[in-house]
Amino acid sequence: MSEWFEIGSEIRVTDPASRGLQYGDGLFETIAIRNGKPRLWRYHVERLTRGCERLGLVAPLATLERELESVLARCELDTAYCIAKIIVYAADTDRGYGREMPSRANVSIGLFPSTPADRQDYRNGVSTMLCETRLATGSPVAGLKSLNRVEQVLARSECLQAGVFEGFTRDADDRLICGTISNMFIVRDSRVCTPSLLRCGVAGTMRQLVINLMDRDGEEVEVRDLDENDLASADEVFITNSQLGALPVRRCGDYTWSVGDGTRHVMALLADYGIEECRS
Amino acid sequence: MSEWFEIGSEIRVTDPASRGLQYGDGLFETIAIRNGKPRLWRYHVERLTRGCERLGLVAPLATLERELESVLARCELDTAYCIAKIIVYAADTDRGYGREMPSRANVSIGLFPSTPADRQDYRNGVSTMLCETRLATGSPVAGLKSLNRVEQVLARSECLQAGVFEGFTRDADDRLICGTISNMFIVRDSRVCTPSLLRCGVAGTMRQLVINLMDRDGEEVEVRDLDENDLASADEVFITNSQLGALPVRRCGDYTWSVGDGTRHVMALLADYGIEECRS
Repeated sequence: MSEWFEIGSEIRVTDPASRGLQYGDGLFETIAIRNGKPRLWRYHVERLTRGCERLGLVAPLATLERELESVLARCELDTAYCIAKIIVYAADTDRGYGREMPSRANVSIGLFPSTPADRQDYRNGVSTMLCETRLATGSPVAGLKSLNRVEQVLARSECLQAGVFEGFTRDADDRLICGTISNMFIVRDSRVCTPSLLRCGVAGTMRQLVINLMDRDGEEVEVRDLDENDLASADEVFITNSQLGALPVRRCGDYTWSVGDGTRHVMALLADYGIEECRS
Repeated sequence: MSEWFEIGSEIRVTDPASRGLQYGDGLFETIAIRNGKPRLWRYHVERLTRGCERLGLVAPLATLERELESVLARCELDTAYCIAKIIVYAADTDRGYGREMPSRANVSIGLFPSTPADRQDYRNGVSTMLCETRLATGSPVAGLKSLNRVEQVLARSECLQAGVFEGFTRDADDRLICGTISNMFIVRDSRVCTPSLLRCGVAGTMRQLVINLMDRDGEEVEVRDLDENDLASADEVFITNSQLGALPVRRCGDYTWSVGDGTRHVMALLADYGIEECRS
């Protein structure tokens, strides 16, 4: 079940000729709606703005929050706890890859029901795997949430097949990058690290919030290249996602971890910030 | 101007919830229609079949030629010389990246008018550039024509901006890969080379035909890693594309070439095969 809305005169239902479908020429955001309001709105708009700059798209971002609020006010879903998906894609121009830079973009907003992860998962951690699917490295849209997500489709389908909560993807050079629907953090000797996303991967809003909250408290999250050895020698591993907040990881294939102080500290920071899923 | 058709009961007009739009979870082919018939059909279906296997998609490929013929018979376009675009994308399943593997795919066919390149371009060669946009390397869909084409959108838009016929893309490690709408070949000391597409890029049908025709005549096309030095030291450069056949390149940035025997030989092979654009 989902509801879709058309906003303003620039927005129309996609047809097969759309550059969004033909080329994935656009971006999206998946936003947690809590008590009728978008959570981490500023973070989502900031990434969308960077994405539009990179792809040369002009979208009505200034009025987007108002449009979303209007959609939330008139939808039939329970907006106390749901997901909003915003898709921004290049408006149709002439056939072929090339277009004017910048060019006008269409926006669609979808709303979906959502259920929180199990409380057990926040206490005991989730089970993960290393995906076989690799992410190509050196992407011109590294860190952004473009509509080009075939790698995530393949990697996420591996997780569904294996029945695990999440899968970690590596790039073509064996670097750990991120989860299929989350970002990953490693704690070792009380230091928190997360993979660099300069070559590929998606820089999540909750990842950025964790980095910012730690930084505010004078605790630096080290952003650097990580590989499987870092996973093997980690004291703790946790993941973040805009819907879930932070979740401990108890297993990845043969590697296992306990839920430790580093993870609990980050969850407490998020809970204090109002990320209700992380409230103990 | 374009026309779109819906085929069979599995096919429907895309809505914003489509996996094709949301993730680029699919493939496409751009087929030259000449005198009412698809050209290089076997090559297109072969690539589409490999793509469906890689992405875990089940599409009605066995009946696709008949569907295309039916569309061609009833469309309003002049089918003596036009383009058919076939888009195959995952049918909707639950929200989120993951899906069953394999899963059912939808198919859309679009028809577009087409005009041949200038005769001058076949005689004197076209002007090209090296694009700034890089292709990410180590892609799980390397060589295939997935709907994830943001890199080509960015690179092709550079060409439009610069007013050149084509642009050559390099991967993140400076290897030459392909043109934005073509594959590239280099002739040196009477040997013909073309870049390996194992890490990224699209393996074009006309490229494969050239390799096959050369091979049939006992002349091997060397498929290997190439970089800008190979371009600098080339005697001749030419490009191939399903619509254009083979076209000489006379310039790429500061590098210039004459149209030579290697290129003319390939064009003659294609003309003999029935690629009318290459007839002198």
